[in-house]
Amino acid sequence: MNAPTPLAHLAPDIRQREVPATLIASLQQRFGAQCSIAQAVREQHGRDESVYDVPPPAAVVFAQSTQDVADAVKLAAQYQYPVIPFGVGSSLEGHLLAVQGGISIDVSRMDQVLSINAEDLTVTVQPGVTRMGVNTAVRSEGLFFPIDPGADASIGGMAATRASGTNAVRYGTMRENVLALEVVTAKGEVIRTGTRAKKSSAGYDLTRLMVGSEGTLGVITEVTLKLYPLPEAISAATCSFPTIEAAVRTVIQVIQLGVPIARCELIDANTVRMVNAHSKLGLREEHMLLMEFHGSPASVKEQAETVQEIAADFEGQAFEWATTPEERTRLWTARHNAYFAAIQSKPGCRAISTDTCVPISRLADCLLDSVAEADASGIPYFLVGHVGDGNFHFGYLIDPAIPEERERAEGLNNQLVARALSLEGTCTGEHGVGLHKMDFLLTEAGTGAVDMMRSIKRALDPDNILNPGKIFSI
Amino acid sequence: MNAPTPLAHLAPDIRQREVPATLIASLQQRFGAQCSIAQAVREQHGRDESVYDVPPPAAVVFAQSTQDVADAVKLAAQYQYPVIPFGVGSSLEGHLLAVQGGISIDVSRMDQVLSINAEDLTVTVQPGVTRMGVNTAVRSEGLFFPIDPGADASIGGMAATRASGTNAVRYGTMRENVLALEVVTAKGEVIRTGTRAKKSSAGYDLTRLMVGSEGTLGVITEVTLKLYPLPEAISAATCSFPTIEAAVRTVIQVIQLGVPIARCELIDANTVRMVNAHSKLGLREEHMLLMEFHGSPASVKEQAETVQEIAADFEGQAFEWATTPEERTRLWTARHNAYFAAIQSKPGCRAISTDTCVPISRLADCLLDSVAEADASGIPYFLVGHVGDGNFHFGYLIDPAIPEERERAEGLNNQLVARALSLEGTCTGEHGVGLHKMDFLLTEAGTGAVDMMRSIKRALDPDNILNPGKIFSI
Repeated sequence: MNAPTPLAHLAPDIRQREVPATLIASLQQRFGAQCSIAQAVREQHGRDESVYDVPPPAAVVFAQSTQDVADAVKLAAQYQYPVIPFGVGSSLEGHLLAVQGGISIDVSRMDQVLSINAEDLTVTVQPGVTRMGVNTAVRSEGLFFPIDPGADASIGGMAATRASGTNAVRYGTMRENVLALEVVTAKGEVIRTGTRAKKSSAGYDLTRLMVGSEGTLGVITEVTLKLYPLPEAISAATCSFPTIEAAVRTVIQVIQLGVPIARCELIDANTVRMVNAHSKLGLREEHMLLMEFHGSPASVKEQAETVQEIAADFEGQAFEWATTPEERTRLWTARHNAYFAAIQSKPGCRAISTDTCVPISRLADCLLDSVAEADASGIPYFLVGHVGDGNFHFGYLIDPAIPEERERAEGLNNQLVARALSLEGTCTGEHGVGLHKMDFLLTEAGTGAVDMMRSIKRALDPDNILNPGKIFSI
Repeated sequence: MNAPTPLAHLAPDIRQREVPATLIASLQQRFGAQCSIAQAVREQHGRDESVYDVPPPAAVVFAQSTQDVADAVKLAAQYQYPVIPFGVGSSLEGHLLAVQGGISIDVSRMDQVLSINAEDLTVTVQPGVTRMGVNTAVRSEGLFFPIDPGADASIGGMAATRASGTNAVRYGTMRENVLALEVVTAKGEVIRTGTRAKKSSAGYDLTRLMVGSEGTLGVITEVTLKLYPLPEAISAATCSFPTIEAAVRTVIQVIQLGVPIARCELIDANTVRMVNAHSKLGLREEHMLLMEFHGSPASVKEQAETVQEIAADFEGQAFEWATTPEERTRLWTARHNAYFAAIQSKPGCRAISTDTCVPISRLADCLLDSVAEADASGIPYFLVGHVGDGNFHFGYLIDPAIPEERERAEGLNNQLVARALSLEGTCTGEHGVGLHKMDFLLTEAGTGAVDMMRSIKRALDPDNILNPGKIFSI
């Protein structure tokens, strides 16, 4: 396996195509006030949570229906000009940036919950519905949707990046929880990738091909999701540990014993301090596992007892329980805001997030050496992790005005990715490739597999208009 | 939605390409005794459990390594001549038949368990290992692999058809349980589609694209599977019902309540009789649910009590428990042999299997009308179902020498598929498309989606040599 090319991803390959004036005119004619070329609107759609600085898209179309999306794509296709789907703009990897120019297709107004099938545990939504929006809609049915990236991301964006979050250890990721999609193709045609049947062997798995394709194979216009009954009992707990290693060893044993823990998050002591400062939580400022158990009252009790016994073996202490919904919400909201808490701890900074994921048996090997490297670098960082999945995030807090800080942070990430790959892991557990991990993907998957991805891309988007320049060069 | 073309799948489109003599000579030179052109060997590799009669492949290569597979594909590719992967030959849908001629690549000698990673709950196997072979290998680690189609199928074949079985209601299908693959491409190159990380957002999901592609996009040469800890407690039970409807309504309620039942199978009274005759089980010859519960002793007890209460509401009676491993094995072996029991009940017959799967709320609508139709037809049938998934199989037992029987059976299947599609279901829950459901796939997925599949096929296999003529015409 080759080492990742050092720092090649510091500068994305920006080659904006010239926007045809007649395309803009056609879009304005078709969409009227739904099409904007205002500088502020374009700029808002030309950035995300990544560190890259790329000129904005040429125009923004606020789609309100599948037909709107199809028409926008058809017009762009006539001019072989790019389109870039936009949900809430919470990508960490540069997915939304118009590196080859483009029309941003903002689907945030496609925010209808189309049908809730409580008996089948499914819901069909438009792509602009957010994860919290789904949960608000289905709660009265006694159901919930577990996938929860940090931001209140759009379901379309979550499908496009194969997102996960804190519940994935038990409930899986978008890979497991999208049943079917409606997609607008590169020609502006509308297809469906599946039915509401729970399983199917009917041809190629277009659903899973679209999930994680980052807008490069089609624009998602409808998503059918799996839902779960709200657990009869839920219990959340924090537990402090003297070292990160002790916390990680606890997690490994919990997972290997097959305890069906619903959430199992690591937060290092420094990040607990940032979270306390931001969310006024008063948590013990030590390395911490934040856990949640779902099930019947008896099963939750059983799981919690098992985990407490394991934690005790590793000097875990101060098991503190949050049993009321309000306490739990406060705790998890704080966890979800860890990223923003960290950003605010160093005014003007940006975070360079890592996203490696390794088999659970290799988690300690991967994490502990990387902590030592980060400490030695002197760059401030936050560390949170969906450690039950073997996935964790360093966020190196850098001053974007100081290139040397960014280079050092990217250097740390390079070392971490190389380590994760050598441990049979992946460079990205849930954030996607975008612009930031194109070199890493090549190292991880190999030329043959990436060439296969390129072949698929060329076959489905011969003019390379669907979010071009992402995932791999072509 | 168009109705499926009636009976078009009675006769597959057979256009065998002429095999180049120099290809056979090259294969014999490269593979020696591993290459056979004996009539008996070819015929054995030219049929499966489907009803079709197709001339056999031109030769059989018994691959013993990935390199063997790659070399066989490379040689065939030089002549643009088809290759057809072969595991144990248990396909029900004509997957293995050489409709365009071909070299059968038999991987049954690639039967090594390559590595068991008990700590990560993964195992990597060669494609010729069978599902029982995997379980034999991992049992001493306290682990099991749940996916169990009726036959002791090969893992490669199960991946290729996106197989499932009786445990899918809790553990998912091959879609959810294949972590990564090694695949030989149409050019004879070897790629890997993923890592051992539990989740990943690293580019297109080539693993899920290959799973269910029925040998048309690559030849699977290695499979990394998820494993599960053997449950602390297991309990199996049968429960009899006065009507199929009562059994089905019980299942629907069990699933909708979120009971994490591990297996939930319907066997109709007639099929119970066939199973009794074949396996000497002495089961009550009434409509029956066959269930299994996995978990801690407390959780198993809780689940079983809930299900008993629900069953009682629907006049379920005679809950009979099989608690020893021997009793359970006897029961599930009998279930897995239902297909063969049925075949033996009518000497010389073949079974035409249906495989529809619908959302659980539509299960009663789909199943009961189809039972009435089958009863009215006078064709003997068996009926078993993974009803917890909304998936069930009629097996119409026909005399292959009487075309009219086959036409009537296919007519019943047509009606069933049309019904399932109108209820938001799929024509195939787990058997795959093969030759038998090509028309149904087109109706179910629509021209646009099937055209997308064709584009992918052309991109990855431009000379159409990988199991051509399956899934869709091209």
